[in-house]
Amino acid sequence: MDTMKKNWFTESCEMWPGSTFSFEVKEVLYHERSQFQDIQVFDTTSLGKVLVLDGIIQCTQKDEFSYQEMISFLPLCCHKNPEKVLIVGGGDGGVARDVAKHPKVKEIVQVEIDAKVIEVSKKYLPFMAVGFESKKLTLHVGDGFEFMKNHSHEFDVIITDSSDPIGPAVSLFQENYFALMKSALKPNGIVCSQAGTFWESMGLVKNTLRFCKNQFPIAAYATTSVPTYPCGQIGFVIGSLDESVKLDQPTTKFSLEEIKSMNLRYYNSDIHKAAFSLPSFVKKEIES
Amino acid sequence: MDTMKKNWFTESCEMWPGSTFSFEVKEVLYHERSQFQDIQVFDTTSLGKVLVLDGIIQCTQKDEFSYQEMISFLPLCCHKNPEKVLIVGGGDGGVARDVAKHPKVKEIVQVEIDAKVIEVSKKYLPFMAVGFESKKLTLHVGDGFEFMKNHSHEFDVIITDSSDPIGPAVSLFQENYFALMKSALKPNGIVCSQAGTFWESMGLVKNTLRFCKNQFPIAAYATTSVPTYPCGQIGFVIGSLDESVKLDQPTTKFSLEEIKSMNLRYYNSDIHKAAFSLPSFVKKEIES
Repeated sequence: MDTMKKNWFTESCEMWPGSTFSFEVKEVLYHERSQFQDIQVFDTTSLGKVLVLDGIIQCTQKDEFSYQEMISFLPLCCHKNPEKVLIVGGGDGGVARDVAKHPKVKEIVQVEIDAKVIEVSKKYLPFMAVGFESKKLTLHVGDGFEFMKNHSHEFDVIITDSSDPIGPAVSLFQENYFALMKSALKPNGIVCSQAGTFWESMGLVKNTLRFCKNQFPIAAYATTSVPTYPCGQIGFVIGSLDESVKLDQPTTKFSLEEIKSMNLRYYNSDIHKAAFSLPSFVKKEIES
Repeated sequence: MDTMKKNWFTESCEMWPGSTFSFEVKEVLYHERSQFQDIQVFDTTSLGKVLVLDGIIQCTQKDEFSYQEMISFLPLCCHKNPEKVLIVGGGDGGVARDVAKHPKVKEIVQVEIDAKVIEVSKKYLPFMAVGFESKKLTLHVGDGFEFMKNHSHEFDVIITDSSDPIGPAVSLFQENYFALMKSALKPNGIVCSQAGTFWESMGLVKNTLRFCKNQFPIAAYATTSVPTYPCGQIGFVIGSLDESVKLDQPTTKFSLEEIKSMNLRYYNSDIHKAAFSLPSFVKKEIES
């Protein structure tokens, strides 16, 4: 199928053959190939602005907050004192925007490999790129994998906001990546990585969780609802070096007033716990 | 957009303009218009068998269990003794199949308006239509609304498994329908109705919940993940006449062994509680 037909963009991928999601385009705002990937930004009739990398939807203005808030606040709220945070990837700025909201976070370091994604987001996706303006943030353009080799025992939380494991992000789903993150963490550190949907990519979910479990004494998969991702569901693998942590019980709980003042539109303490409650067929697979 | 192009079926609807979901068709198994609606059954490359009514996906073999188990077991497990259950709609048989699994259910009455849907499901969708073989079930072809006018104080639980509120199902989303269900319930009865997705149909969610709250002292919205529904998310409005019930705390809890022996692939007691934990933006809307 063509990806563009009569002003409709169609997403299809070898990871989910046999079904596609399409949206109506008002305007193609940007389309170029960077050193690493094909980058498209659309204005759409129903999803607001949309960022597409290598033909795959990365985020839409309509629902990006669910993904960004959950990948940020799940690990931050499990950690007793998440002062220093590393973000690997996240070139649109959305994760930095939400990590910066957490009152205990003092310092954020971000390593994004593709300068073009940062530039394009600053120009066309300011609702996410506002994250780059945080005074807590130091932004590096480079390879997160290489960066961590030179930064041992430095971070309380490491968040990996990557694209899917086809293309530049493949190395971020391997066990040696989890081992490297472990070495870059302070004692009691926590990691959180994008880990696919259980509806379509159970193998990916199981492997990523196994790699994490091999390196971290506490590990689990948590889920959230993102309509414009395949199956409308994506999850995260979270690992903790602190064995006293119960991942589904946030150590920091926010009141509804605090949630509102941080402009958290998805995350709250109830949904934190709920994110770790999985369907029977998923439990069976990942506990086997 | 055409709904069929080069063996791909595309679903689009005025309820969610600007985006579409498409799947690849192996074979069109059935396509006719009944007295009430257009009925299509497909065999597909990635979703198994699919039932489509008036151009809208009703269920796919891949993920129907999430919807059917949740719309059945959420109300059944909130009720202390759900002996007699009424199902309105559910012509594919999936809800009857799952309601019959609950050990406390003795008698199921089902009222489906379209005999053609039952017939087609028995022929092409036996994994759901197996529900019609239950010895607990009495099946009526007719209008659920009219049926209830002649059946007062008779049921412990009423489950409304309807299509979306455009077409024959419109009347099932009005306040007088909730009033009618209330009159058909025994004391301490519980109702559960399909109530749309908060991502796309917040107005529908809010209205349905308000109608329920106007008639029932206890009412809430619960959510589940269904990849082939719009936004991959759908919810239910649940109302209880028993004021001592806490909807997010099942009165009947099943062990993992029991879940397995009932072949419940989605529902479990953890996910029961999680279904009532809603994103901040949804809480804000429905509590306002």
